[in-house]
Amino acid sequence: MRVIGIDPGLRNLGWGVVDVAGARISHVANGICHSEGTELAMRLLSLHGQLTRVIATYRPQAAAVEQTFVNKDGAGTLKLGQARGIAMLVPAQAGLAVGEYAPNTVKKTVVGVGHADKGQVAHMVRMQLPGVEIAGPDAADALAIAICHAHHGGASALAAAVARAQA
Amino acid sequence: MRVIGIDPGLRNLGWGVVDVAGARISHVANGICHSEGTELAMRLLSLHGQLTRVIATYRPQAAAVEQTFVNKDGAGTLKLGQARGIAMLVPAQAGLAVGEYAPNTVKKTVVGVGHADKGQVAHMVRMQLPGVEIAGPDAADALAIAICHAHHGGASALAAAVARAQA
Repeated sequence: MRVIGIDPGLRNLGWGVVDVAGARISHVANGICHSEGTELAMRLLSLHGQLTRVIATYRPQAAAVEQTFVNKDGAGTLKLGQARGIAMLVPAQAGLAVGEYAPNTVKKTVVGVGHADKGQVAHMVRMQLPGVEIAGPDAADALAIAICHAHHGGASALAAAVARAQA
Repeated sequence: MRVIGIDPGLRNLGWGVVDVAGARISHVANGICHSEGTELAMRLLSLHGQLTRVIATYRPQAAAVEQTFVNKDGAGTLKLGQARGIAMLVPAQAGLAVGEYAPNTVKKTVVGVGHADKGQVAHMVRMQLPGVEIAGPDAADALAIAICHAHHGGASALAAAVARAQA
């Protein structure tokens, strides 16, 4: 199964695509969609176009988006929400189921502890995908989300298989 | 000029279309896009599809979206931001410039005071568009945003004409 992970942001939206076969995870691609300028509608349109092209190019079969940490700054939260709307919409438009994971779940899955910092996450992503060039911290986060989804998706597939075997 | 006003919301996204000719504003259509269910991506996809059809049907030439009031609840703000991302994206995808107005600007333009309540706004919208059946409070707000954009757009067009005449 091919999974895209997305780390939403209005200025930098990270994405990472991995292939999952059993316990084996291999890197496909990663990158960052940038949007600049002052007109919000144009920035969202730009992110939408870039992310649509990423999905058309790499054809993932599942998607996962970080369940954004709600910060204290209302204006920042609103901005992030707008970018996150695009991050959720684009894979749904491609017919993909979109998983959501809390940052702590992603960290716990990838690093082993829920309070790991960005540097630790990037380090563990590099360990799991050796030799991969990572476009930046947002792309590393996106790969971590994809890896998290691969683990959880694999676990639920296994649980479903066990349930079927027991039925 | 035909203007669509949009009042973003995840459950109820109001829209209203008016035609503007000089100082004359006439009603074209209004309604509410609903999204239900628990899967956020599906709800955003549904809003995107509904709003895209509205714009394809009524073919506005300009759009305006309320500059959402950032409330104190972070989760609510994030939810609203996601819906607002769709509300900004769809007209941009149709090639429209998307204006943004703070709620107080909309109220001040339509009612005359910035602190008017929802009931007063709906009342003034009904006064300006007599005999129009309004789909609900969110649609009334959307019409108010469209009327606000018509007024401001008209004012800037006039200012531009004056500037040209003086040049």
